[in-house]
Amino acid sequence: MRLSQFFLPTLKETPSEAQIASHRLMLRAGMVRQLTAGIYSWLPLGHRVLKKIEQIVREEQDKIGFNELLMPTIQPAELWQESGRYDDYGLEMLRITDRHDRKMLFGPTNEEAITDIFRNDVRSYKQLPQMLYHIQWKFRDEIRPRFGVMRGREFLMKDAYSFDIDYESARHTYNKIFLAYCRTFTRLGVKAIPMVADTGPIGGDLSHEFIILAETGESEVFCDQKWLEKDLSGQGVDLNDRTGLESWVQTTLKDYAATEDMHDPEQDAVKSLGNDLVTTRGIEVGHIFHFGAKYSEPMGATVLGPDGKDTPVQMGSYGIGVSRLVGALIEASHDENGIIWPDAVAPYKVGLINLRTGDDACDAACEDAYAKLTNAGIEVLYDDRDMRAGGKFADMDLIGLPWQIVIGPKGLKNGVVELKNRRSGEKTEVTFDAALNQLSA
Amino acid sequence: MRLSQFFLPTLKETPSEAQIASHRLMLRAGMVRQLTAGIYSWLPLGHRVLKKIEQIVREEQDKIGFNELLMPTIQPAELWQESGRYDDYGLEMLRITDRHDRKMLFGPTNEEAITDIFRNDVRSYKQLPQMLYHIQWKFRDEIRPRFGVMRGREFLMKDAYSFDIDYESARHTYNKIFLAYCRTFTRLGVKAIPMVADTGPIGGDLSHEFIILAETGESEVFCDQKWLEKDLSGQGVDLNDRTGLESWVQTTLKDYAATEDMHDPEQDAVKSLGNDLVTTRGIEVGHIFHFGAKYSEPMGATVLGPDGKDTPVQMGSYGIGVSRLVGALIEASHDENGIIWPDAVAPYKVGLINLRTGDDACDAACEDAYAKLTNAGIEVLYDDRDMRAGGKFADMDLIGLPWQIVIGPKGLKNGVVELKNRRSGEKTEVTFDAALNQLSA
Repeated sequence: MRLSQFFLPTLKETPSEAQIASHRLMLRAGMVRQLTAGIYSWLPLGHRVLKKIEQIVREEQDKIGFNELLMPTIQPAELWQESGRYDDYGLEMLRITDRHDRKMLFGPTNEEAITDIFRNDVRSYKQLPQMLYHIQWKFRDEIRPRFGVMRGREFLMKDAYSFDIDYESARHTYNKIFLAYCRTFTRLGVKAIPMVADTGPIGGDLSHEFIILAETGESEVFCDQKWLEKDLSGQGVDLNDRTGLESWVQTTLKDYAATEDMHDPEQDAVKSLGNDLVTTRGIEVGHIFHFGAKYSEPMGATVLGPDGKDTPVQMGSYGIGVSRLVGALIEASHDENGIIWPDAVAPYKVGLINLRTGDDACDAACEDAYAKLTNAGIEVLYDDRDMRAGGKFADMDLIGLPWQIVIGPKGLKNGVVELKNRRSGEKTEVTFDAALNQLSA
Repeated sequence: MRLSQFFLPTLKETPSEAQIASHRLMLRAGMVRQLTAGIYSWLPLGHRVLKKIEQIVREEQDKIGFNELLMPTIQPAELWQESGRYDDYGLEMLRITDRHDRKMLFGPTNEEAITDIFRNDVRSYKQLPQMLYHIQWKFRDEIRPRFGVMRGREFLMKDAYSFDIDYESARHTYNKIFLAYCRTFTRLGVKAIPMVADTGPIGGDLSHEFIILAETGESEVFCDQKWLEKDLSGQGVDLNDRTGLESWVQTTLKDYAATEDMHDPEQDAVKSLGNDLVTTRGIEVGHIFHFGAKYSEPMGATVLGPDGKDTPVQMGSYGIGVSRLVGALIEASHDENGIIWPDAVAPYKVGLINLRTGDDACDAACEDAYAKLTNAGIEVLYDDRDMRAGGKFADMDLIGLPWQIVIGPKGLKNGVVELKNRRSGEKTEVTFDAALNQLSA
């Protein structure tokens, strides 16, 4: 993509409303613009990152056998009256009345809607497990939206739902999701620590929040420092080996990690940690939860069991905050000059800077480089704008592409370009072909 | 994908609410389920088709230099009060009040929102043209939702917007979009005829509706029968040759085609057609429209022109009904047994039918075929369910994949499989390798 043809309105000044780094940087890098309180438009650069995160989340759901569907944003109130949540949900639910005075709402989550789909079309335990997910915009009418996309009102979430015949099967499904989440966050280039979460009135041990450690996180978290070095890539784990998977999950979870709500300093496990207890703040980017028959019972989502009796199915739901992750990744990876994208979600892999647009030799070398990078299947953003080099360097650091190739008159005379690694800041002078080789690897 | 692990609730009976073929078939093929009046969930099979259409639409927008972004579904009422449309829009607009009693709405379209983005970040004619689009869910509170996704309330639309310095440039942008639409519908495997549309109070000749001919269409249309054979693929047209592009558009449009609203039987062009005038019905799947300064003037979207003066920009908007297209493609391509997907949007290219699941030889041959098709990069849906062959044949015809490979005990003895073309109905007995070769071509 040529920057002269790309809508990238970067800002030199930081808008006054932005309190945290990710919000500041997303505005300055031209990734988002607020349309109204807590509601954002995703400009082309931000949209590309959002789509890359979404795609990684999708692939890891698909790999464990979940089927993607898409439920609508608007839901009828009746469904929520059936589950009993219509009155419970409070002011965060955006309630709507249509032209025929029917009560509707903008879905803050989809347990009721998916249970309705399930109960209408699934009849027998032989059709279980059913594992479904969608990636859809949700709305929660936060009283005080803030921190940009981290606590917005309209947000993109992946929410998955599972239906099993009994607790043992549901537990296996839960373990699969646990594995998928570890793999997802690892691929996104960030450490998200699974922490025991409150299971509320249902109880049990099957609920975890996945937390990215960051000073600007909204809640305090506590964990064994072993988590900081732990491998969560989940490689080599066999999905279909129930016992092996359970044992991998339990081994992974053996070290202490808890959110503010669940932390108990009097626990032996905490006391024995001593100086190994890390106390910091965190951002919740995922939450997985087994809730048994909480919805299936009131909503009549039953199947004919092997014993010939109608049985309410065992359900769980599993969320990842896709749009929040854009902000969370920036909180976890930036410096004073701007964003530093993990490779997997970078909007482009390489920024190509023409130091002197208008100079024939520079233009020709850059065009050639642009064509070769593109042909090699490398995503490249070519800064072909007619402006001074300082502004180009600043913009390129700000938007945080992993690599920069700088082409200018001086280097061209010596047959070299400058290759810069955004994260380390390391710059090397190499031939363009050497740079291309390195980036193609 | 194995059908035993895919959520595909097909129906034998036609639900009574479905009046037209596409609605019936989408319900029967397990593509969608209604959540409430005019609001649908897209089940996995339907979702795959929706995504394929979306992707083709996206690629053709990208090719003509439009930038993708994503605006939110919920918009503040203030913007629509600025443009004057808040009161004009009537009951089709879903109006919402948030917890702080602020007036909002679920966007039925995005002219105001995009104009707001533009005016905040674009200052100079040197930054023009700006060409932006998004693919987002919209809501129109139809008084009588019907025909399934063809006239639903929540629907997916691609809407593009352009900003130019003057009419001549805006006309060139309009021509680019015209070309992109011809290419898009051609790739989707359907003929959509551009018909002169009403430009309302603004006037001018720059508005066309793209119409798929179908008996179940909502409005009557009239066209020269030359359109039925016309090549609209737009191949070889050079985007950057203003004169050449204009001339291609004019040549393409020279034959008569008009919707009910614009048709005039007294016109010479119509009278001279005689028996060459086709009178039928049509489904609107796209609409392109130049509207000049209609929004830029009241909303203050101006740029500094070459003369140093503030000038309101010339705008256009260009829509494609992505979710409606799923229904429209089915209206244009089905038979008494089910859907017949055009190749480009088929949810899978091949359906693999195991005639006798449980039979060792059949299972082994099917597993082998499934692996080989998958490895060849061919999208295949493998019916491995344990049920009788008749149901499998019926389901496979119903969901309309372009090809079927049937593997059964009798064929296996002779070393052959049955390869069936869904559109022609033609069946041939060939070796599996021959079938694989043909499908890989």
